Amino acid sequence: MTDRSYSPLPFADVAVTGPFWRERLDTVLTRTIPSQHAKLKETGILASLKLPKPVPPLTIPRNKHNFTTQIFWDSDIGKWIEAASYALSHRRDADIEAKIDAIVDDLARAQSSDGYLNCWYNGREPDKRWTNLRDNHELYNAGHLLEGAIAYFRATGRRRFLDVMERYLDHIAATFGRSPGQKRGYDGHQEIELALVKLYRLTGDRRRLDLAAYFIDERGRQPHYFTEEAIARGEDPAAFWAGTYEYNQSHLPVREQTKMVGHAVRAMYMASAMADLALELGDARLKRACEALWRDVTTAQMYVTAGLGPKESNEGFTEPYDLPNETAYAETCASVALVFWAQRMLHLDLDGAYADVMERALYNGALSGLSREGTDYFYANPLESRGQHRRWAWHICPCCTMNVSRLVASIGGYFVSSSDAGVAVHLYGGFSASPTIQGKRVAIKETSDYPWSGDIRIAVDPEAPSTFELRLRIPGWAKTASATVNGEPIALRPERGYAAISRRWSAGDVVALDLPMPPERLYAHPNVRMNVGRVALRRGPLIYCVEEADNPGGPAQRLTLPREAPLKAERADLFGGVTMLKAPAKALAPSDGAALYSTTPPATRDATLAAIPYFLWANREPASMQVWIAEAPT
Amino acid sequence: MTDRSYSPLPFADVAVTGPFWRERLDTVLTRTIPSQHAKLKETGILASLKLPKPVPPLTIPRNKHNFTTQIFWDSDIGKWIEAASYALSHRRDADIEAKIDAIVDDLARAQSSDGYLNCWYNGREPDKRWTNLRDNHELYNAGHLLEGAIAYFRATGRRRFLDVMERYLDHIAATFGRSPGQKRGYDGHQEIELALVKLYRLTGDRRRLDLAAYFIDERGRQPHYFTEEAIARGEDPAAFWAGTYEYNQSHLPVREQTKMVGHAVRAMYMASAMADLALELGDARLKRACEALWRDVTTAQMYVTAGLGPKESNEGFTEPYDLPNETAYAETCASVALVFWAQRMLHLDLDGAYADVMERALYNGALSGLSREGTDYFYANPLESRGQHRRWAWHICPCCTMNVSRLVASIGGYFVSSSDAGVAVHLYGGFSASPTIQGKRVAIKETSDYPWSGDIRIAVDPEAPSTFELRLRIPGWAKTASATVNGEPIALRPERGYAAISRRWSAGDVVALDLPMPPERLYAHPNVRMNVGRVALRRGPLIYCVEEADNPGGPAQRLTLPREAPLKAERADLFGGVTMLKAPAKALAPSDGAALYSTTPPATRDATLAAIPYFLWANREPASMQVWIAEAPT
Repeated sequence: MTDRSYSPLPFADVAVTGPFWRERLDTVLTRTIPSQHAKLKETGILASLKLPKPVPPLTIPRNKHNFTTQIFWDSDIGKWIEAASYALSHRRDADIEAKIDAIVDDLARAQSSDGYLNCWYNGREPDKRWTNLRDNHELYNAGHLLEGAIAYFRATGRRRFLDVMERYLDHIAATFGRSPGQKRGYDGHQEIELALVKLYRLTGDRRRLDLAAYFIDERGRQPHYFTEEAIARGEDPAAFWAGTYEYNQSHLPVREQTKMVGHAVRAMYMASAMADLALELGDARLKRACEALWRDVTTAQMYVTAGLGPKESNEGFTEPYDLPNETAYAETCASVALVFWAQRMLHLDLDGAYADVMERALYNGALSGLSREGTDYFYANPLESRGQHRRWAWHICPCCTMNVSRLVASIGGYFVSSSDAGVAVHLYGGFSASPTIQGKRVAIKETSDYPWSGDIRIAVDPEAPSTFELRLRIPGWAKTASATVNGEPIALRPERGYAAISRRWSAGDVVALDLPMPPERLYAHPNVRMNVGRVALRRGPLIYCVEEADNPGGPAQRLTLPREAPLKAERADLFGGVTMLKAPAKALAPSDGAALYSTTPPATRDATLAAIPYFLWANREPASMQVWIAEAPT
Repeated sequence: MTDRSYSPLPFADVAVTGPFWRERLDTVLTRTIPSQHAKLKETGILASLKLPKPVPPLTIPRNKHNFTTQIFWDSDIGKWIEAASYALSHRRDADIEAKIDAIVDDLARAQSSDGYLNCWYNGREPDKRWTNLRDNHELYNAGHLLEGAIAYFRATGRRRFLDVMERYLDHIAATFGRSPGQKRGYDGHQEIELALVKLYRLTGDRRRLDLAAYFIDERGRQPHYFTEEAIARGEDPAAFWAGTYEYNQSHLPVREQTKMVGHAVRAMYMASAMADLALELGDARLKRACEALWRDVTTAQMYVTAGLGPKESNEGFTEPYDLPNETAYAETCASVALVFWAQRMLHLDLDGAYADVMERALYNGALSGLSREGTDYFYANPLESRGQHRRWAWHICPCCTMNVSRLVASIGGYFVSSSDAGVAVHLYGGFSASPTIQGKRVAIKETSDYPWSGDIRIAVDPEAPSTFELRLRIPGWAKTASATVNGEPIALRPERGYAAISRRWSAGDVVALDLPMPPERLYAHPNVRMNVGRVALRRGPLIYCVEEADNPGGPAQRLTLPREAPLKAERADLFGGVTMLKAPAKALAPSDGAALYSTTPPATRDATLAAIPYFLWANREPASMQVWIAEAPT
């Protein structure tokens, strides 16, 4: 059943035309990316590239584990260049390019003669490079810089940054490996593997793929590299602050891992790289490991918003079904990286179950990380608030800010794939692209108001009549999909989440796909103890939440939704146009001075529950919010 | 309406005869107190009194705030002597007395010539005494030592320890105050005030009462002592690790405080001292402050178990209605101290509302801190568990262990009060006492199987026929109390929680009081967002919980209790005899491989919910538990 034949179209080849993503994309291009550059400047991150002597004191103080997030400023710069380069692919901009070139100048100057490039170590601890892979993010930084260099090259054709990084990679490849004199190390924070596969796909240089495979293969082997490295530093390996190598998923060789553990972003980057390598190398064991981890995450460790990682202390996973709402960590980066992983799983095996999670993460757990205005962020994405949560204008660890901007700036890359067999559409919402199928260009134009509406129109215009399949994703939530071709109803027989329409296509052919979006109730698995007796609301790909702003008169948590209450979708002007969900509900209504505990159930009054999409929460005055609403008897 | 005429009988004058408290008391006397001495020895706490030179390294390492709990080992010793002395009041024991005398020898040797006595400072930092009242517990330690000395004197008549402490108090009184050359300081952790009032009541020495009043009055005044003290140490007062003087309730003068804030145990000790002083000094403003704080705690900040302080980081209060269940801190000490405070409020104003909270804290939040075997403890008392909670055999901060033992060892002191007007009975469960009323001894013998049964018999035997009132507490939960005198029904007309029976009593008179205990549902105020749609179970004074051991087949959280399901009380052999609550309920029953989220509500199967008293939880194999059960529709 595995179908690996489809490949995603590069985002630059997909025009995003629909209102939903057009608006988010414009916001990111015109507000988010420029404001991020200003923040990088204002916070001293850009200046840190200049390796000033004497080195100034730390801007970000060390935490109780003697760690400063300043150590991965290189990665922030790499991610901003990547996001900004994606913006350039939409529209060249001399000012942005000059800014990037200036950064590349600094990086080139900071690079050591042997190719090594890390502004923290070169500036502050030149003798300590490669002595603490476990904690100090050197390879992670290299990975993000490399992704930036690839994106900038793709956008502009300028190779200077890429050349710098190729030199650095030569150094890294010489340093790490299984040959005598090499370190058998790997990254404490996975990331570079993804970047290396991207580079291999750009240049075809097999050494880069092999290095990625080496890092993945070596991970978790015995004797344990991080143990030996700690001893070499004169430290007690058992004093590792995180307490366990599960934290960075090096507790076992990756192919033996079946439970997703530890730091969620590391886990997702690793899983993405595993899927990349499984595809490129045809590695069935690696694919099976990916599948086992996928099953674990999606059946027991994922929030309904596709947030990942309930716990703050490890920024990661705990145990099955442990999904607290108010204290959910659910880092934006983790949901962004889940989008990456899901897309890779989808192209390892074209199954709509992967696309369903990709879509859920995209519209909910990832998008919630960026404010409506495009200049404020959530790092953690809780599913409940008493009003204590505030979006950040920046963060001591700004990883999430540019993860969400690089995702949105390249959003077109997630919509559609092609193969010799035809075209597969994964996401809807308005796009056009012209993939080449069996040697012929086929213009595909999808038009819809998705995710607000499931009324979708796809115009198929091959340059000459041609027989191929149009595979349309039928989302898991769409129970009653129907379609016509040129106005004639056709039978949709979705298999594994996709309905294939195979025919001889001619210019002017139009497919109309109807994905009805009735508002729905979602129930959690009974082992999710926090959500027993509670319900979440969904319409189409969007998970909803109840905010106090739309439900004035008390905390949102006082609303209860009787099980039989009908849900209604209603268009509202809020936030430039949003479909709200409304339902007759009950509001627990304490009298003034009500007892803290009483044998009488609280009085209730009739209320209209009004819910907005979760990703839009916390864009008004801070107040209470919840996703999981009590279905209490009244 | 204020009635301050009643005073509690000393616990040594009250024989505890009923099965419930007799069992707990025997356990504490025979197992808990001896095992605590062994722990004090084993952990080096006793040895620390000997001020060895050179001083050994820290046993308890400093935490991230550079603080070690070793600094208050004196208090642990004081509390153990107090608990052990209460045990001696029940039954003299040469071995225990020898152990205490040995400790007193060490303390006398450790005392400086000027009277100062603190084993940490005298042993390790003799030059730094009284330089950090905010953090370093000197006065707190003094208070607990003093309570131990008073208890030992009362039990044995030996005054050596008391003499040591009187010398120390002379030193403290000379050091602190408003005269020139004195420090205008007060304790960072309130406690000594309570002890000073106790000493005043023992000796009549007014200077001790005045010192207690000084500490309470001075607290929170400007210029702020802890600020000036930090500056004198060369520290930035703003760098106070707790971030706010609310932590130790010195943010405002105590009479201006209306919201209970900060560290819960400090808050409760302070409030207890305020109530003591309001009574002794007839200070109406202090009484009003107590009443405002009481209202705040009991209407918005108290768990249904009478646990206090939801948050771990400050071991204390957060904001109204913030009462998370699984992460509840609810320190044992805080509920023990709430018993202290409630008893003091009750004698400041004989209102059953105070006795209701006293009883709730006693039977639930306090008693849950001690295992059935009497040798393991809870420091935090959560209201929900997924099985991660374990009782401790000891604790890095063993404050709770001896708070619960000193409470149980003196439990008789909470049952009954007397005045010229008569006798007031607050708690039931079997006791006998012979207070003197209007100059005549009156033997009172209460017989019952309380808290399991509300069938209560009180024999009143005055040495000569006498007219006085017998005030019987009618608990807030007892909605249909009735009584007879010598078999004749009487009308109970409870006022403010007490029914007074005024008559001419003669030898052989018997009052039968019936307090029916139907199992009940409790609902939380709607602002307690965690408990919306949930219900707690109560019978008599006991709050119940559902443990997996009695409800096998999955986490306790999977049980839901339909609102109309009848509750039944059922006697069981468990734990030597316990009344369980049972109800027809539903258990959410996932099929194997059930989806994490589904549009279909989880299937349910019929189940019998079996609940045990909360104080008995975690006495079997660790597993899930919850107090607040979903009343989900099924």
